[in-house]
Amino acid sequence: MQLHEFLTPADQVAQRTGPGNRIVLSSRVRLARNVSGFAFPGWAKKADRQRACDLLCEAVGRQPEMQGAFTASLDSLSAMDKQILVERHLISREHAAKGAGSALLLSRDESLCVMVNEEDHLRMQALLPGFQLPEVWRAIDRLDTGLEQSLEYVFSRELGYLTACPTNVGTGIRVSAMLHLPALVLDEQITQIIQAVNKLGLAVRGLYGEGTEALGNVFQVSNQMTLGESEAEIVERLSKVVAQVIEHEDNARARLLEKESKVVFNHIGRAYGILANAHSVSSKEAINLLSLLRLGIDLGTLPGTPRALVDELSILTQPAHLQANHSDKLTAEQRDIRRADMLRHALRDVRRPIVPPPPAPPLDKPPAP
Amino acid sequence: MQLHEFLTPADQVAQRTGPGNRIVLSSRVRLARNVSGFAFPGWAKKADRQRACDLLCEAVGRQPEMQGAFTASLDSLSAMDKQILVERHLISREHAAKGAGSALLLSRDESLCVMVNEEDHLRMQALLPGFQLPEVWRAIDRLDTGLEQSLEYVFSRELGYLTACPTNVGTGIRVSAMLHLPALVLDEQITQIIQAVNKLGLAVRGLYGEGTEALGNVFQVSNQMTLGESEAEIVERLSKVVAQVIEHEDNARARLLEKESKVVFNHIGRAYGILANAHSVSSKEAINLLSLLRLGIDLGTLPGTPRALVDELSILTQPAHLQANHSDKLTAEQRDIRRADMLRHALRDVRRPIVPPPPAPPLDKPPAP
Repeated sequence: MQLHEFLTPADQVAQRTGPGNRIVLSSRVRLARNVSGFAFPGWAKKADRQRACDLLCEAVGRQPEMQGAFTASLDSLSAMDKQILVERHLISREHAAKGAGSALLLSRDESLCVMVNEEDHLRMQALLPGFQLPEVWRAIDRLDTGLEQSLEYVFSRELGYLTACPTNVGTGIRVSAMLHLPALVLDEQITQIIQAVNKLGLAVRGLYGEGTEALGNVFQVSNQMTLGESEAEIVERLSKVVAQVIEHEDNARARLLEKESKVVFNHIGRAYGILANAHSVSSKEAINLLSLLRLGIDLGTLPGTPRALVDELSILTQPAHLQANHSDKLTAEQRDIRRADMLRHALRDVRRPIVPPPPAPPLDKPPAP
Repeated sequence: MQLHEFLTPADQVAQRTGPGNRIVLSSRVRLARNVSGFAFPGWAKKADRQRACDLLCEAVGRQPEMQGAFTASLDSLSAMDKQILVERHLISREHAAKGAGSALLLSRDESLCVMVNEEDHLRMQALLPGFQLPEVWRAIDRLDTGLEQSLEYVFSRELGYLTACPTNVGTGIRVSAMLHLPALVLDEQITQIIQAVNKLGLAVRGLYGEGTEALGNVFQVSNQMTLGESEAEIVERLSKVVAQVIEHEDNARARLLEKESKVVFNHIGRAYGILANAHSVSSKEAINLLSLLRLGIDLGTLPGTPRALVDELSILTQPAHLQANHSDKLTAEQRDIRRADMLRHALRDVRRPIVPPPPAPPLDKPPAP
């Protein structure tokens, strides 16, 4: 089966929602695991890496939650397919660069994805829309427990799970939430918030993880340490911090609406005006303007326009997704034109933003952490 | 009578059109004259300047074409009124800075304006919409001939009319046309065109004359020399060059539509999108975006939208015109908000730009020079 036949279309992905989806785009947990008897992927010889890959793919594929999964060796995927998986946040950029001897398994509902021979033998992640860190933790814990019955993980009584990079040693867990924080950015509070979160031992990163830019006002908050704390403690601590960040974002939205509504409506109006009328839009500009449109929907300036429309466009306007809809290989310039054509068409029936009557519509409260 | 009671409202000014108005916004001729028996304004003592001013105002006011004119000493006008006259291109910035001892007379139809004691005793101009340089020349020549019957101009047999600045000596004439050249700017041909026009001994300047920026893709082409050529020759030569520039602009529009239509429609679409949806727009941004909207109308992307709407907004969004509509003194920031409010309201019924079906609608030809 080809990847494009397996993957859920973007419009349906955008329909998936979870609690607190207004600000928390997604919740994710990933575990790093290695198995005894095989050198770590970075050290293994080609044949050994392939042998480990086959064995691991077989073991993962046997798990009940992976029935009907999409399984592929990385060398069987086109560069475009790999990029599409990165754009969907299903695999890392690093894994996309791998070839023979590395693989991926993606569950039927796309909530579980296992990268085989990325930096570690196994990088398994659970991904759900909205704010549901305990749920993703339970999902990945089930898969991990199932796998542990047939695989012997490299484990030290003192250190816990051993991993290729010392930053993952211990629990091997990375819990993260993807947050949409346009008001904190507009209100210039974001740097302060990031510093405060960092002081709590958590990392704040851009849209595509480590070392990437915070495009579209999207920030990924995750634990830094994997040693000295149980998985449940990490999940709980991150949940609490995320709940606080949500509160700050909500307060910033309320403050902006009250004190600087013209600034907010100016940003939203311009974003809408450009997206609905431009004939060339870069990927980066699209992400940033769609973020403001999403804020506009949250604030009631675009009554009748579902948030899912923006979320769908945020997926579809990315370079590989855009290329996938065209048989000819597009240049970046041609993509910018097709992207603009898609945006104008998608927004053709969306009326101009209005200034919502005060008081602003009630903001739905984030779930208790 | 107050200036605001005298001046034609902007919507009616925008309705005035002339031949070739699509590209030539206006045609103008101004004459510099000084009278015997009085020191030039820059040298005159205060009392002498006032005496000259009174005498000149009286002489100008007697001319038949100045019946019902608006006459005011510069010290009787508010800073806002002076700025409004500058924004209408009726007086120079330099004249607006003058006070007692200087005056202006503006004919009932606003086509003739005489500045008394600007740099010279008399700076009289005729201004008409569109491309009609011979007509403005005839109009100002009539006024000048009429005045010469009661005033003794400072005249040298060798040099012609003497003026405060040697650059005006001779005919004292400055013939100019205000051209809207967005396609030459977009197509990056404008520098080359300016250089070519300069080589013909003509000056190219920005929206408000000497030393000003070319905002809104508007360029003023005028004669440099006032010596050694008759007025008729200057008018004819400028007419020919303007006709050539019009042709270049038309060719650039055709070329852009044929080869880079996406670039053009992108600019027009974005301009419309921002103007129709922003909540804060600076004066400079408004001029530049309205220029692109005007191009959009010329190219058929906004069927049903009259060019006069853009021309009216180009007048009304200028700082003093905007202030004139509000009783409170506005800050620049408040003006930007009111300007955006005005633009959104004015464009509320203007539908999104379309891509006109090829072939592009026939461009109306400029009149023969």
